[in-house]
Amino acid sequence: MNKSSIKVGLLGWGTVGTGVSRILLNQSDLIRQNSGVQLQLHKIVKRTLPASRDGIDLPADCLTTDAAEVVDNPEIDIVVEIIGGVTDARQLIRRALQNRKHVVTANKALLAEHGLELFQIAAEHNVSLNFEASTAGGIPIIKTLRESFAANRIHSIYGIINGTCNYILTQMHESEVDFETVLKEAQAKGYAEADPTLDVEGIDAAQKLTLLIALAYGINVPMEQVFVEGITSITQKEIQYARELGYVIKLLAIAKLQQDKVEVRVHPTLLPMRSMLANVGGAFNAVCVIGDAVGPTLFYGQGAGEMPTASAVVADIIDAAKLVRSQTQVLIPRAWLSDSEVEISVDSIDNVETRYYVRPVVLDQPGVLAQIGSILGRHQISIASVIQKEPHGEDTVSLVIVTHDAIEKNMQTAMREIDALDVVKEKSQLIRIEEEVNF
Amino acid sequence: MNKSSIKVGLLGWGTVGTGVSRILLNQSDLIRQNSGVQLQLHKIVKRTLPASRDGIDLPADCLTTDAAEVVDNPEIDIVVEIIGGVTDARQLIRRALQNRKHVVTANKALLAEHGLELFQIAAEHNVSLNFEASTAGGIPIIKTLRESFAANRIHSIYGIINGTCNYILTQMHESEVDFETVLKEAQAKGYAEADPTLDVEGIDAAQKLTLLIALAYGINVPMEQVFVEGITSITQKEIQYARELGYVIKLLAIAKLQQDKVEVRVHPTLLPMRSMLANVGGAFNAVCVIGDAVGPTLFYGQGAGEMPTASAVVADIIDAAKLVRSQTQVLIPRAWLSDSEVEISVDSIDNVETRYYVRPVVLDQPGVLAQIGSILGRHQISIASVIQKEPHGEDTVSLVIVTHDAIEKNMQTAMREIDALDVVKEKSQLIRIEEEVNF
Repeated sequence: MNKSSIKVGLLGWGTVGTGVSRILLNQSDLIRQNSGVQLQLHKIVKRTLPASRDGIDLPADCLTTDAAEVVDNPEIDIVVEIIGGVTDARQLIRRALQNRKHVVTANKALLAEHGLELFQIAAEHNVSLNFEASTAGGIPIIKTLRESFAANRIHSIYGIINGTCNYILTQMHESEVDFETVLKEAQAKGYAEADPTLDVEGIDAAQKLTLLIALAYGINVPMEQVFVEGITSITQKEIQYARELGYVIKLLAIAKLQQDKVEVRVHPTLLPMRSMLANVGGAFNAVCVIGDAVGPTLFYGQGAGEMPTASAVVADIIDAAKLVRSQTQVLIPRAWLSDSEVEISVDSIDNVETRYYVRPVVLDQPGVLAQIGSILGRHQISIASVIQKEPHGEDTVSLVIVTHDAIEKNMQTAMREIDALDVVKEKSQLIRIEEEVNF
Repeated sequence: MNKSSIKVGLLGWGTVGTGVSRILLNQSDLIRQNSGVQLQLHKIVKRTLPASRDGIDLPADCLTTDAAEVVDNPEIDIVVEIIGGVTDARQLIRRALQNRKHVVTANKALLAEHGLELFQIAAEHNVSLNFEASTAGGIPIIKTLRESFAANRIHSIYGIINGTCNYILTQMHESEVDFETVLKEAQAKGYAEADPTLDVEGIDAAQKLTLLIALAYGINVPMEQVFVEGITSITQKEIQYARELGYVIKLLAIAKLQQDKVEVRVHPTLLPMRSMLANVGGAFNAVCVIGDAVGPTLFYGQGAGEMPTASAVVADIIDAAKLVRSQTQVLIPRAWLSDSEVEISVDSIDNVETRYYVRPVVLDQPGVLAQIGSILGRHQISIASVIQKEPHGEDTVSLVIVTHDAIEKNMQTAMREIDALDVVKEKSQLIRIEEEVNF
């Protein structure tokens, strides 16, 4: 196949951009052999021109500080947005799409917020907007949902899709230190940002989940409709008690289809210790997808980092390159088409039915368990097991309660009543349990 | 998107064909929404016309006994070959490709044997020949290697890609029964064929491995060049001793790039007990791919069965449908193009370097270990551990030896010398150990 080369422009030259430039410069023969397209790195936009980088020999005049040299450049066919952030990225992607350039982005925050607008522009100009690297790094979960599982009704998705949280929780499981200590260590090692809020509060995972849901269910879920709980309140006690019960705590992004509604939630979750998801350690990611035809599947790999993310970005560039100068009509995911039929809506967290781990801290005196049990019973919550833990310092004990399936709304009401009891001394921990992914 | 419908013809209506017809009949709206193509099941060829099937309401005149009504039918755009076997399938696929129909097949035996011929015909007629369902059922490993990892130099592939063997080995691990007993039970449950040779001798896994290698390394490996050992000689003793050492035995299909040569082998393998691959149980499949950019990845799911395999077949049909009536040049994997540049060749099993588990059965008398140790030492094989097991019936004991890394050729020579010793009473067991997939 002797197509003329297809010119690629990068917006941004940070970690991922460096990886993308490495691959485009060093592996263009391999890419041509594997995919029949000849890619050429033409321009890189960087706000301040950096010194040269190890092992990267850029073509002359490749670096520029002027984004117009990429997004308005008639020679460039494919624009790769890897500057991050929302405002500038949005403007530049809009302009690139309007100039009929295919766009590749890793920007989940942007798509979660402005996907509808950007895909609309892409559709109007018949160019693609690819985003494999936005979720789960090098794992091809976006393509799998878009293409490989296109004949499946997706029952559920369970994702460990925030490496920072998974690193922190893994360390807490392995070294018995507290959240704050592990967070500092993760920051020192580069596994967590200086401001870790987006990661540890579950927001990053929620943004990614909306992208997976867009492909799996064809609906654009606004962030406000995602139920999100981060990992900041998980203590060593929770980790240890969970282990004693045979569970591991993970931050899980969950989508579950229930008739015509889909549960959309991100929260710490107790997973059976022997399950594959429970054993995804460190900064790794994994996504489990259960489809009506394909059954249970699991995809595992590095969720971030220079080269894994670059691998996904370049795969998207190759897909876009196959469309350059073809007459093919580009397929826009229907979640982001304003005129698409919608049959599925987001279910309220109130309706979720699952098992719960709850840990009230109570005065060590007779009758307390009876009080708590009676509140739970009044709200149709049945107890599977209770363990009373050794006394804390000041006459209090932890009651580690595992429930049978209960309805979230009832559970929340019951917990409010329990936490209001005189004998309950702090806000009770509540963690949802997931046993459907026990493989 | 309002394309006119694309007509699909099936060759065969067995298990997988039934699943494919279910999806095409029941999920055509979902497929159109997800992929923008309107598929229509037009004809099914079945040698003898069956009675109707549960839940399948075929269009009038859909069933026929005449394959020409599919492969020569000008109305049909996509032909799906799911009759299995080599001779008829080959002739029909040739004819369909020559008639410029896109072809989808799940037939690994056919592609392993005649891939070069069939892809050549596909290239000449600019039609696609898709085969996602040939390997690992519903797991999209073919598309991942072809597209998602196209910018990666693949370091290695480790696959549990024969469900029958994995079911049998899992049962042997869990219920402590012998191979023959589990095989009979597997046959009764439909997990093994009446003639299980292709599965238990590793041939099916080897055929699939050649397809993965074709995509990962761009080379067409003839079956004669694959080193294949089945699982028929694995006894309960091996299972138990492996477990004591912290390993699980799996039939693993392995490809490893060593400079410009690639190791291509299928054999029982000791895997670290806590690794993800070791925990793939029952009839499930998993493929681990390590790429230079993406790093280690793992893909897990059902490797066979009506609906998982149909899910992959229909994904291939959708990909083909996107090409129907387009002017796009179809991409043929370069492994099967006669004029492709080849830089990588198959390495001899003799050059493999790995750790080994060996179990000589020897007379229970002094000096035996010294004799064996001296033979191993003479061939540059260093012992990591030896455990002497309790006496068997007749004055013999098992020596369970684990070596450090050694060269296969040396190992084989040493084992021939060891087995020729008077004190060695039966052919020693030898199983390779794999510790690179310890995640």
